Amino acid sequence: MGTTGIRSLATDIPVAGIVAGRPALAAPGTTFHGRDVTRGTDLAITFADAATSEADTAARAASEAFFAVQTTESTLRPEALVRELADALEGRRPELVEIAGIETGLSAERLNSELSRTTGQLRLLGAEAAGRSGVAAESDPRGAEGFAPALALGHVPVGPVAVFGASNFPFAFGVLGGDTAAALAAGCPVVAKGHPAHPETSQLLAAIATRVLADAGWPAGWFSLLHGRETAIGLALVEAAGISAVAFTGSTRGGLALVAAAAARPVPIPVFAELGGINALYLLPAAAAEAAFANDAKAEATSGTSAFVTGLAQSITGGSGQFCTKPGLLVIVDDEAGRQIVSELSRALSGVASPPLLTPDILTGLRAGVDRLRGLPWVEVILGGPSDDTAAADRVPSFLATVTSGVLREDPSITDELFGPAVVVVYCESVDDLIEVAQVIPGGLTATIHAAPAEAGSASALLRRLRLRAGRVLFGGFPTGVRVGRATTHGGPFPATSSPATTSVGVRAIDRFLRPVTYQDLPDDLRERALSWN
Amino acid sequence: MGTTGIRSLATDIPVAGIVAGRPALAAPGTTFHGRDVTRGTDLAITFADAATSEADTAARAASEAFFAVQTTESTLRPEALVRELADALEGRRPELVEIAGIETGLSAERLNSELSRTTGQLRLLGAEAAGRSGVAAESDPRGAEGFAPALALGHVPVGPVAVFGASNFPFAFGVLGGDTAAALAAGCPVVAKGHPAHPETSQLLAAIATRVLADAGWPAGWFSLLHGRETAIGLALVEAAGISAVAFTGSTRGGLALVAAAAARPVPIPVFAELGGINALYLLPAAAAEAAFANDAKAEATSGTSAFVTGLAQSITGGSGQFCTKPGLLVIVDDEAGRQIVSELSRALSGVASPPLLTPDILTGLRAGVDRLRGLPWVEVILGGPSDDTAAADRVPSFLATVTSGVLREDPSITDELFGPAVVVVYCESVDDLIEVAQVIPGGLTATIHAAPAEAGSASALLRRLRLRAGRVLFGGFPTGVRVGRATTHGGPFPATSSPATTSVGVRAIDRFLRPVTYQDLPDDLRERALSWN
Repeated sequence: MGTTGIRSLATDIPVAGIVAGRPALAAPGTTFHGRDVTRGTDLAITFADAATSEADTAARAASEAFFAVQTTESTLRPEALVRELADALEGRRPELVEIAGIETGLSAERLNSELSRTTGQLRLLGAEAAGRSGVAAESDPRGAEGFAPALALGHVPVGPVAVFGASNFPFAFGVLGGDTAAALAAGCPVVAKGHPAHPETSQLLAAIATRVLADAGWPAGWFSLLHGRETAIGLALVEAAGISAVAFTGSTRGGLALVAAAAARPVPIPVFAELGGINALYLLPAAAAEAAFANDAKAEATSGTSAFVTGLAQSITGGSGQFCTKPGLLVIVDDEAGRQIVSELSRALSGVASPPLLTPDILTGLRAGVDRLRGLPWVEVILGGPSDDTAAADRVPSFLATVTSGVLREDPSITDELFGPAVVVVYCESVDDLIEVAQVIPGGLTATIHAAPAEAGSASALLRRLRLRAGRVLFGGFPTGVRVGRATTHGGPFPATSSPATTSVGVRAIDRFLRPVTYQDLPDDLRERALSWN
Repeated sequence: MGTTGIRSLATDIPVAGIVAGRPALAAPGTTFHGRDVTRGTDLAITFADAATSEADTAARAASEAFFAVQTTESTLRPEALVRELADALEGRRPELVEIAGIETGLSAERLNSELSRTTGQLRLLGAEAAGRSGVAAESDPRGAEGFAPALALGHVPVGPVAVFGASNFPFAFGVLGGDTAAALAAGCPVVAKGHPAHPETSQLLAAIATRVLADAGWPAGWFSLLHGRETAIGLALVEAAGISAVAFTGSTRGGLALVAAAAARPVPIPVFAELGGINALYLLPAAAAEAAFANDAKAEATSGTSAFVTGLAQSITGGSGQFCTKPGLLVIVDDEAGRQIVSELSRALSGVASPPLLTPDILTGLRAGVDRLRGLPWVEVILGGPSDDTAAADRVPSFLATVTSGVLREDPSITDELFGPAVVVVYCESVDDLIEVAQVIPGGLTATIHAAPAEAGSASALLRRLRLRAGRVLFGGFPTGVRVGRATTHGGPFPATSSPATTSVGVRAIDRFLRPVTYQDLPDDLRERALSWN
């Protein structure tokens, strides 16, 4: 592999990132290492937090690069850049999958599919960016009388974007993931903050991007990467004057800190923070009866488990439960079918021990969450989840508990997200109770309704309520799959995101990084200039 | 007039607003009065700040009303509501214009036209809302293979909106102005904070809205008004749990305080704050020569003033310079034509004494701004503007000063907004210098280019720069007129707004109060329910 790859780096100089094509300066005393998650050991390369001054340097370089490209005629095109990035990622696929596998413990199959999704996302957003060039979204022709100048609506990139990737998708929500793809496709430079859970993967991705930019003649400041385990470098990045917008995927606490910091700047900037939520799944009683007793002959013959429960168990434990769309709450009527479903689910989940969690912090958080629930006398624990003895490199047993809807109403903390293979069942007294309790379950990225055809009235009543609380409402199926399309919403009311009108996945993700501009009485000879990207 | 009108109110009970159809409780010791601006005297009715607890009460009532309407089938339609409001405003036109005229000093002609704009806005946004019902903006059909569920995109109202109106447009940006119209048309309840510069106008508008809602059968909580001169009630409103979004028109300082408060909430919410900016007008030299010397025979014959200067002077002094789109900076090349334009402008402005400013605070702010500039040795003052002797009820003389582009580069405070009839001329050494200085002039709602046909190259270079800094770029004309259309952007990068992707005027203003929801595998029999407004 080339000299930009991380394997060739001397291990005695800490790697703190790449700022406008050169190695980032490290903050003293902040070294850390990538982890082999499955073995529970440190990797060889020494990383360090970037010096906080590097945030400003990277942002300034991005801002100067942006201004230079926007004010000079050139052949540089965002759609070409993201396409070239996709090609370059494909060219380094084996290496990327290997490093990410070591740092995350995710399977090669999963990582290969995630990488394909990532390159697909780059190409899709690139095509969308190209389609927008030279097109006025709306216009008002000059009016015959009164005050009616001609208006034409165009869009411009917002400027440099700070991207904070997530721990759980090293590619799709990583240094060159969806947020970076959307920002670059919109014509914005990016300063990425690498997630400390996979620094080697982040560094390799950034090295690939640096090479692609250089080969295509983009200014080096168009992309930078800053490593960091402490919060200082991230806050410095959000506060850097050159940054115009922030995209973040991660915890509610981390996202809220960035939202507050961005709002307190002399020039406030938007933060698009994708956080999470409980992703409740509502199973109406006729659908439950169908799932529990009916004609799923094949499934019952082999395992005694219905297709619904098999799918749900996979959705809960996929990626070791570390998806922001993991169903964390199963809301069900307390009847024979409901009890049967829970019994099957218990059997299905007890057969699964998930691969180790992505970081020791996630394990600590999950243990604290299940410990708290185990300590509540009104929570019935069926599967106990990780215990104090569970080590970071261990496979993680699932957690399953039940409460009544009355308990949920009394103790809203029941709906706190458990990040990992864990689910809480809410037993309702009736369909009406189930519909009512939907009103107190907080919002998030998704809500799912399983209803039999005869239950359309109840499904409609749920729909009225759930669409006020989720970015995506599913009818059947499970929320962990996110289709990357034109109509995708990966967002929703808080805590799904801090910016409820936006999506971080799908074609409309690009809208976050474009700003409308109205041209009034634009002369014909300037029309192309105004409506083209630079 | 009816009993809901303010004239019939007893003057010994302070009026603090209307909360869900009943009088708001007042905070002790906070009474104030509307002002007869032209006479400089207090009006009779005693107002008071609403008790801060009323913010939460109003927000809760709005939230409950919203939930009730969204979860119950009914014939209530937002498009009908805003149409009925428009009709009701027309029915009270003489009274509204009279009260607003007393409280603002604006002419009956201006206020009649502003009221027409306000009712037109309500009707336009209502029609847009109706057009959106039942329509999926985007969809992804079910795919044949792989993970490809069917997706349909719909929109839901975000929930209760807090609206902070401005001092300078008692109707168009007032209690029932553009922000309220957009929120109501989107299907959101509104809690409005009345501007203390025109409490009687605000109270009358709210009384009209209260009556319209009651007659049409909407829950009383759908609209509330809170009065307040102190910041406490406004902050309490932004912090109230029931509020989902904030719309604000006013000062940068006030807007930033709300942005920070909204970001610090346990559940952060978006603030759409429309603030202002310098609205620079760039006059290229050939255009200047045309304006100064050429064939404007008729204008020269009568007054020696070109049509350009007449138009510019009107734009600077219209509404006593209290428009957020007032051109505050004229950027020009220092040549014979440029000097001629400035000399004509000085003559035109010295002939104007503007009506009194809307509030004593605005006069204080303007005096402080011009005093500061007058104290700088590198600022050449041509017309001195208001002095320490100018009283609140006095007509206000214009301020005109010149600086060189070098001074502007050294002292960025030259571009601070002067709210009132005031303009600063920036003399550049050359066209190149003019294009370069555009890079250091901050952003705002508008930027205007005046170029002769032969100057298309320079106009293009300016366009490249100005579109990065303004929400609307004009070619010819003056920025103070804002067309309410489909392609309107009344927004832009900070300090134009805190939310650069949005507009507070025009059809797209409604987008701020709608949230996308994706329906996955939506059954046909639920399609209408999902895609209709409630």
